[in-house]
Amino acid sequence: MQITFQKLDLLNSVNIALRAVSSKTTLPILECIVMQANNDTIKIISNDQELGIETIVKGNIIEPGSIAIDAKLFYEIIRKLPDSEIRINTNESFMATIQCEKSKFNLMGKSSKDFPVLPEIELGKSVNISEYALKEIIRQTIFSVSDNDANKLMTGELFEVEGNILKVVSLDGHRISMRKIQLHEAYENIRVIVPGKTLNEISKILSGEMDQIVQMFVTDKHILFKFDQTTVLSRLIEGEYYKIERMLSDNYITKVKINNKEFLNCMDRASLLIRDSDKTPIVLNFLDDGMELKITSSIGSMKEDLDINKEGKDMMIGFNPKFLMDALRVIDDEQVDMYLFNPKAPCFIKDKEESYIYLILPINFNAV
Amino acid sequence: MQITFQKLDLLNSVNIALRAVSSKTTLPILECIVMQANNDTIKIISNDQELGIETIVKGNIIEPGSIAIDAKLFYEIIRKLPDSEIRINTNESFMATIQCEKSKFNLMGKSSKDFPVLPEIELGKSVNISEYALKEIIRQTIFSVSDNDANKLMTGELFEVEGNILKVVSLDGHRISMRKIQLHEAYENIRVIVPGKTLNEISKILSGEMDQIVQMFVTDKHILFKFDQTTVLSRLIEGEYYKIERMLSDNYITKVKINNKEFLNCMDRASLLIRDSDKTPIVLNFLDDGMELKITSSIGSMKEDLDINKEGKDMMIGFNPKFLMDALRVIDDEQVDMYLFNPKAPCFIKDKEESYIYLILPINFNAV
Repeated sequence: MQITFQKLDLLNSVNIALRAVSSKTTLPILECIVMQANNDTIKIISNDQELGIETIVKGNIIEPGSIAIDAKLFYEIIRKLPDSEIRINTNESFMATIQCEKSKFNLMGKSSKDFPVLPEIELGKSVNISEYALKEIIRQTIFSVSDNDANKLMTGELFEVEGNILKVVSLDGHRISMRKIQLHEAYENIRVIVPGKTLNEISKILSGEMDQIVQMFVTDKHILFKFDQTTVLSRLIEGEYYKIERMLSDNYITKVKINNKEFLNCMDRASLLIRDSDKTPIVLNFLDDGMELKITSSIGSMKEDLDINKEGKDMMIGFNPKFLMDALRVIDDEQVDMYLFNPKAPCFIKDKEESYIYLILPINFNAV
Repeated sequence: MQITFQKLDLLNSVNIALRAVSSKTTLPILECIVMQANNDTIKIISNDQELGIETIVKGNIIEPGSIAIDAKLFYEIIRKLPDSEIRINTNESFMATIQCEKSKFNLMGKSSKDFPVLPEIELGKSVNISEYALKEIIRQTIFSVSDNDANKLMTGELFEVEGNILKVVSLDGHRISMRKIQLHEAYENIRVIVPGKTLNEISKILSGEMDQIVQMFVTDKHILFKFDQTTVLSRLIEGEYYKIERMLSDNYITKVKINNKEFLNCMDRASLLIRDSDKTPIVLNFLDDGMELKITSSIGSMKEDLDINKEGKDMMIGFNPKFLMDALRVIDDEQVDMYLFNPKAPCFIKDKEESYIYLILPINFNAV
């Protein structure tokens, strides 16, 4: 194989492919990316067996061929070469030579035949969404995916399409995050569970442009995202996702309107008195003339008053502030509405249209 | 005690004092800073028993007094309070109340009487230097201080004043860094060893302004730096520092002029082939028509040619690139001069005026 690139083109593509390179694997070939040059196309391919990425890179093929090469080392070398033309040669014994200006590296590669190929997917009709919208909806829900493998379902997010609505849900046993967006057209129903890891990695690759489209293709076992010059293929998590509709409710005893930023800052300060080892709650006391936030821990105590707009009964309730803050941080509204039932029942933060619903379980507290 | 501050004034002062707060100490009081309000002055004091800091903070004393309070927690609380007036009250049982707008913290403090006082120093004549010059000379030498406590002398830097010249030296057994600067006036001779840790911390506090003066006072056991509203007091390292003059030399067999940036970038690339566990050298081959840099490691090999200007014999010599790069990074000259003797003798990088001298030991290599 003999190919040439402009440094920045190659660097960007390798950087994308890196997202599906295993850092800890027992199969050394998975630490490689494959460079494949044929049919006038140069592809960079990576695969950690959960997630696979294929991206097309601009360059010239002087002699077609392919090679597998250590991904991180290759990326670092490209990164540190001068901003100029890079020439890559390989021979029959998989020695790769990387040349740029007066610099010349020799690295032992591997046969790309040993690299697991990405499964061929039968592509049906795609669901289309802008890079911006996909990146946003991931950001607004990913924090309540569980990182505990004990319950596989909770490590993924529900992607549900009904008509022209995409609904994304994540939950971890303490809280539920739900976001809905409207798509440009209506589709057949889809209901799949996408691994949180896939969504994390894909949102690092997405440019976030409003006018760039991502095509999503779904099969029984896989989801495939296609955008720019890149294809990301991921396994789905098998199983039946939780019916969250049962856990949601339209009723409430107390409804509170509160300034998002002030509430966030106040909880951020209060969190300083919580050590990781204890689970001291913050206590929110909703009264007619305002909310009082209190915390008393082994470190000290704190009290702060916030202005609110309250409908319904007074209520005192305890929370892990992290769970409230995670939700408030991804809500762009200046004022948010909280709906409460009783000190043992989950609270809801949601907008009128229910384009977002965040449900958070309270924790017990000793009345102070 | 009852005092008020503007948040930013207090935050900046506590941040300075934090530099002398122990993170791992068996004496819990050393995790505190002392706030001391009397004689119209509010001071923040910290002391890790090697290094002590006293800084004056602008504020109003309503009732004088003092308290010791957990430094990191206090800093974080101040940082997260609104940008407004902060009021601190303490009572006889050392409970501190921190109030800002509608937020109110209660923290248990300690009696400042349990806090180790900074030793009183008899101040003689100070050596004066700009904040900029002191910060620069530390940056240009601190990297070759040894972090191995086995040899205490090597963990410090020699500060030597002779006439109007300040000379600063550090060495770690593999290399020597030496910088000289001219002071505005002549002083009596001084020769002391300042702990590397002190210099690291002080360079984080120094603003680096050209027209701000640092006064340095030296006694048998201590060095005291005075600038702005801050006093930093440090123990000196006792002992007789190395006579580095014996190790320096004016002769050479080969002299090479080389572009600093190109040389640095080239070694940076070559370093990618070195694993921490092995000690593969880079091999520099200085020839009439240029320098060839080569490295062959378990990971791969690399070769690069660089333009140089050479006087004297051809020479092939091996180095740990890190040691060369550390020196080159702190030299602002576009072109640097390297002086070589033989493949077993140290090389020198220095300017004509010897305002800097970097000596670096080579390492053995197997000719490739």
